[in-house]
Amino acid sequence: MFPFERIIQIDKNSKIPIYKQIAFSIIDAIRNGMLKAGTHLPGSREMSKMVGVHRKTVIAAYDELNAQDWIVIVPRKHVSVSDRIPLLEPKKWNIHDSKTSYEHSFELPFRSINNQINTNKSSIIPEIIIDDGHPDVRLSPIDELLKTYRSYTSKNYSIKNAHIGTDQGTLRLREELAKFLAETRGLNILPKNLLITHGAQMSIYLAARLLLKSNSKIIVGKPNYPVANNTFLEIGAKLVEVTVDENGLDVDAIEAVCKKEKIAAVYVIPHHHYPTTVTLSIERRMKLLQLSQHYSFAIIEDDYDYDYHYTSSPYLPLASGNHNGNVIYIGSFSKVLDPSLRMGFMVAPENFIQQCVALRKLIDVGGDGYMQNALANLIKDGELKRHLKKAKKVYHFRRDFLDNLLKDKLQDYIDYTLPSGGMSVWIRLKPKYKVLELTKIPQLKIIRINEEQNAFRFGFASMNEQELETTVLLIEKGLKSL
Amino acid sequence: MFPFERIIQIDKNSKIPIYKQIAFSIIDAIRNGMLKAGTHLPGSREMSKMVGVHRKTVIAAYDELNAQDWIVIVPRKHVSVSDRIPLLEPKKWNIHDSKTSYEHSFELPFRSINNQINTNKSSIIPEIIIDDGHPDVRLSPIDELLKTYRSYTSKNYSIKNAHIGTDQGTLRLREELAKFLAETRGLNILPKNLLITHGAQMSIYLAARLLLKSNSKIIVGKPNYPVANNTFLEIGAKLVEVTVDENGLDVDAIEAVCKKEKIAAVYVIPHHHYPTTVTLSIERRMKLLQLSQHYSFAIIEDDYDYDYHYTSSPYLPLASGNHNGNVIYIGSFSKVLDPSLRMGFMVAPENFIQQCVALRKLIDVGGDGYMQNALANLIKDGELKRHLKKAKKVYHFRRDFLDNLLKDKLQDYIDYTLPSGGMSVWIRLKPKYKVLELTKIPQLKIIRINEEQNAFRFGFASMNEQELETTVLLIEKGLKSL
Repeated sequence: MFPFERIIQIDKNSKIPIYKQIAFSIIDAIRNGMLKAGTHLPGSREMSKMVGVHRKTVIAAYDELNAQDWIVIVPRKHVSVSDRIPLLEPKKWNIHDSKTSYEHSFELPFRSINNQINTNKSSIIPEIIIDDGHPDVRLSPIDELLKTYRSYTSKNYSIKNAHIGTDQGTLRLREELAKFLAETRGLNILPKNLLITHGAQMSIYLAARLLLKSNSKIIVGKPNYPVANNTFLEIGAKLVEVTVDENGLDVDAIEAVCKKEKIAAVYVIPHHHYPTTVTLSIERRMKLLQLSQHYSFAIIEDDYDYDYHYTSSPYLPLASGNHNGNVIYIGSFSKVLDPSLRMGFMVAPENFIQQCVALRKLIDVGGDGYMQNALANLIKDGELKRHLKKAKKVYHFRRDFLDNLLKDKLQDYIDYTLPSGGMSVWIRLKPKYKVLELTKIPQLKIIRINEEQNAFRFGFASMNEQELETTVLLIEKGLKSL
Repeated sequence: MFPFERIIQIDKNSKIPIYKQIAFSIIDAIRNGMLKAGTHLPGSREMSKMVGVHRKTVIAAYDELNAQDWIVIVPRKHVSVSDRIPLLEPKKWNIHDSKTSYEHSFELPFRSINNQINTNKSSIIPEIIIDDGHPDVRLSPIDELLKTYRSYTSKNYSIKNAHIGTDQGTLRLREELAKFLAETRGLNILPKNLLITHGAQMSIYLAARLLLKSNSKIIVGKPNYPVANNTFLEIGAKLVEVTVDENGLDVDAIEAVCKKEKIAAVYVIPHHHYPTTVTLSIERRMKLLQLSQHYSFAIIEDDYDYDYHYTSSPYLPLASGNHNGNVIYIGSFSKVLDPSLRMGFMVAPENFIQQCVALRKLIDVGGDGYMQNALANLIKDGELKRHLKKAKKVYHFRRDFLDNLLKDKLQDYIDYTLPSGGMSVWIRLKPKYKVLELTKIPQLKIIRINEEQNAFRFGFASMNEQELETTVLLIEKGLKSL
């Protein structure tokens, strides 16, 4: 007799009903080739004794197997493995074999992505995380947002078609956002010029996938936001790096490149270049627009940090100037409200937006329609602006508070230029100290470290004064002990 | 004197403060080359008369321009356009020019995506929409979900790091989901084998981007889910179509193809093939797994419809069998809870999941951590299972109700096979009627029509009895009038 008691694994503590555990075990045995087509199974009474369960449980298991066509039940005669099961060579005896398919590695060749970006592999969250410029979500009107969200989902009539149009973003959100961008950035656009994405990164990805072919050239700053660089590389494009100085991208260097070779696009972060936090000057902005016209390249303007300026007004975006439609403007609410919310946008001419929508539908269909409409309400009510005003005040204070702390505690170790806006400070260690040493402080995790420049980003916006102080003291202690 | 009154556009009804409107207009004039570097601007008193606003408003405008480095203010002397502005040739006089950059089309070459899939371009939502198999969101425990969501976001300590780990999906959700998939599908996996995506489509996209190179071959059913086909084509892969009959994909045809050429992957929808709703038989499932081992191809198993079976149990997924890790299993909560929620998953070996995470971070960083944890709670509480049980009962009733309606009202016009599960019926029109005629009914919108097969998908799950009746009567009227 087949050793059913050996292949049927019953775990009384499992949430899986026992009859299902029996059925799954028998299916495994059939799949392994251990039980062949036509093999008779023991009657329910006999099986119940072999396995030590109630007979009714065995009957339920057989019913399940029968319903799934694995076995044939001839009442009052016999139960047997279906004849339609193809013949399989039995595998080496290993009852766990079928359960461990996913323990194997995926064996077929597949493209591999550069995965060296700093990830939080460890599930242990360290005491202190220095992020690269996140908002303080404790200040965000998330609760306001969710109240509206719930008010949508609780209405039967409003939820039935909530997903319609979310591939581009709900019309309601695009209408409110177009007004908001006009008021804050001088962008004169219509809802058709807007695409709502899951964040700035998705806008970068979509624009890059459409603009760049294999071996297309894109100009980026050196150093640059590494996730953007990896996106362009993943698509097969070639990076052409130009220097970033205290006024941003060196546009003369861009001109020199354009004279020599065809450039498909320039990726620029005009407010608070990542990682160095510098602002692209007005002269360079105008020259860049001129070059874009003259050499016909697209500008991907990643303006994620526009809303936070403390000691001066922000420069208007390149996108608000004359560019005949060749500027793709990118912004994000993750930086304004909450990195968990995943909502950003892209501004571009209608033909480009339409193609982005087509691509986006292949990537993830659409967004969360309720959340989009809830955000539309937040903008309409003025709540977003009130939040920005409040947050700006708090972050301004925190920036200055950190400035004092750094001067007080770390001036022997570091150099930095206080940025006029944004949510982080670019801190360069003096040559005798190595930034990698900071990664050895066990309670501390720094999200963005740049070894080449011996520097790191200190996101100050997400920390209150006490947290800033604790963090700086921890760094001081770490550096002192070297 | 420069005609400031002509270039300064003031709209008193605009939400943009007037001082900003003045500043924006002057910036436009500088950018257009109309106001050159060094040009003196009128004093604030003079300007206020020219434009007809209070002097303080002009001063605010000048301060803004000064802060943005467009002009230089020499107190008690003059105000002039900054010398650092590069020289520009003036454009043809057109005050609206700079405001309409996004009215231009994007002029540079960019890749274009096949965008012929049925879209809901019109913002008018017709009275009746026949979807292609959506759940009835009015039954979904969205409110339960949002209660938990809010309980997370209202706690200061829980929100600070909520975004960490959402690139793969929060550990909490992956743990609960691994248990759920074991109980419902016999999948024995660990959280590391799971990736949380924005839905089944994103899982398809990620898997395809990693598996398929330009000119790779992928086997798909004929007909197949057109969005999946477009995804594979967009990546540059070649489709090899095999027949789908009443038992699903023809696996003998797959074997014949594999004997002739190298196949990278097979895309299969084993439960309720899209669009025809047939189920892949047990024999074919086993043969397909054998072929996958023998010819070394990946199987992309899109099992979006697993949870809804009425008259029989579902077959266990291919992914629960022996496959040495080469089955990528895809599921979605959009089909279970709400198409607006955008949450799905992928099961695969760890090395493949890790590469998907790396690619996913380039596409959209991560998901909504609060929502992921709220869903984890819904699973843990058993709420998801209770919902599925309730919904299954309702949809079963609706399927049979529609069956009776179709027999009663439309039997002269159509043929169909009632599916044993899922959320839609594949309805073929008799040859003398053309499915395109149905698109002419003004109150009706059908999401998925297949002209070649003269058929359409009738998603019944999202309609209550009254809605089903109204819809069928409308179709009857439309067909009668032909």
